[in-house]
Amino acid sequence: MIFSSKLIEDAVQEFSKLPGIGKKTALRMVLQLMRMEKEKVDEFTGALSRMRHEIVFCEQCFNVSDTAVCAICSNPGRNRSQVCVVENIRDVIAIESTQQFNGLYHVLGGILSPLDGIGPDQINIAPLHQRIQQNGIEELIMALSPTIEGDTTAYYIARQVRDLPVRITTIARGIAFGGELEYADEMTLARSIAKRLPIENYVSIGGKS
Amino acid sequence: MIFSSKLIEDAVQEFSKLPGIGKKTALRMVLQLMRMEKEKVDEFTGALSRMRHEIVFCEQCFNVSDTAVCAICSNPGRNRSQVCVVENIRDVIAIESTQQFNGLYHVLGGILSPLDGIGPDQINIAPLHQRIQQNGIEELIMALSPTIEGDTTAYYIARQVRDLPVRITTIARGIAFGGELEYADEMTLARSIAKRLPIENYVSIGGKS
Repeated sequence: MIFSSKLIEDAVQEFSKLPGIGKKTALRMVLQLMRMEKEKVDEFTGALSRMRHEIVFCEQCFNVSDTAVCAICSNPGRNRSQVCVVENIRDVIAIESTQQFNGLYHVLGGILSPLDGIGPDQINIAPLHQRIQQNGIEELIMALSPTIEGDTTAYYIARQVRDLPVRITTIARGIAFGGELEYADEMTLARSIAKRLPIENYVSIGGKS
Repeated sequence: MIFSSKLIEDAVQEFSKLPGIGKKTALRMVLQLMRMEKEKVDEFTGALSRMRHEIVFCEQCFNVSDTAVCAICSNPGRNRSQVCVVENIRDVIAIESTQQFNGLYHVLGGILSPLDGIGPDQINIAPLHQRIQQNGIEELIMALSPTIEGDTTAYYIARQVRDLPVRITTIARGIAFGGELEYADEMTLARSIAKRLPIENYVSIGGKS
C-alpha cells in the first residue's frame, strides 16, 4: 500500500504490529480514529499508555494488577483456602466472568512444554509451593487447558506439593480435548468448576493412585 | 467479561470502540501491548495521537494530508491535467498502490445518496467545478464504485461540468457490479484505470449521447 500521508502510514504501520491485524484492517481502524473527536482519541491512546506503564504483576498470585497486591488477593470477601491454578491472565478473566468462583488464583504464566523450552523454572511453580506452606491453603484447583501440556503441568505440580496438606482437584472435563480454556463459553466453564474432581480420578499420580 | 484490573478494563473498553473489534479481540490486543516494551507502546500511541492531531485535509483535493497542500498535489512530477475523482481516501490509497496513475485526485468525501440524505452540497462537488475552471484540467477520470450511487454521482458531476472544456472518462468495468472499489485487487484496479472509457459509453448522459 502506498500512502500519501506519513502520519497515516505510521499509524497503519503501528496497528499492523498487533496480532491478526493486516494492512487493510489497520487502515480501517486508523480511519475510524481519524473520524473520532480528538478528545476521544486522547482517551484511547491515554488508556493504552496508562495500562502499559502502570500495570504490574500481583506479588502474591502473579495476576496483572493495578496495585502491588491485586484486587482479588486483597479482597477480604474471597475464600483464601482455595487457590485456582491457571496458565495465564486470560484464564483468570474467563473464570471471573463466570462469577462462580470465590477463591484466589495462582497464575503460572505459562505451561510446561519441554519442546518449547518451558520447564518448571520458567513458570511460577516454586512460589506456589511457598504460598501453600505459608498461607494455609486447603485446596488447589487445577484449571489448566485439557491438553498434554496442561495435564503434564497439573501432574508435575501435584507431585511437587504432595508433602503438603493440600487437596488437589481439577476442573471437570466439560471441554473437548485439545480445546483452549479461554474460548470455552461461560456456562461450560462454570459447570466444570462446580463439578471439579479429585485429581487422582483423571490422571494417575505416581504413588498416590 | 469481568476484569480484576481497571487498567486492563479501560484499555479493552477503548479498543472495543473500533469497528469490528469485539471484547475478546480487544483483550488479545491489549495483552499484546502489555507484552511489548514500554517504548514500543509509546511509539504506538504516539503515532496514533500525532496522526489525529496533525492530520488535515488538502485544500486542493480534500485528500488527507500532513500539510496544507498534500504530497500528491504539491508533487511537481504529477500530471496536473488529469484529475481522478474518488469517493474517499481509501480509494486514493488503493489507486496510488497500483502505481499506474500519475495525475491528481479529487476526493468527494462521500457519494450521492438521497436515501441517506447525502446531496450535492454534502460532498465536494462545487470545489471540483472551481478547480476545473481555474487549473486547466483536461480530463476528469471517474473512479467511483460501480453501484447505483456511484453511477448517479458520476452522471451528476458530468452534467455539472458540461459547460467546461473537460473530457470525462470512467475507469473500465473490471469490477463486479455491487463490488466495493477498495476491495479490488491491484491488478484489476490498475487495468481498469488504464482501460478507462469516455463516460458516454456506459451511461447515456442527457444531451451528450
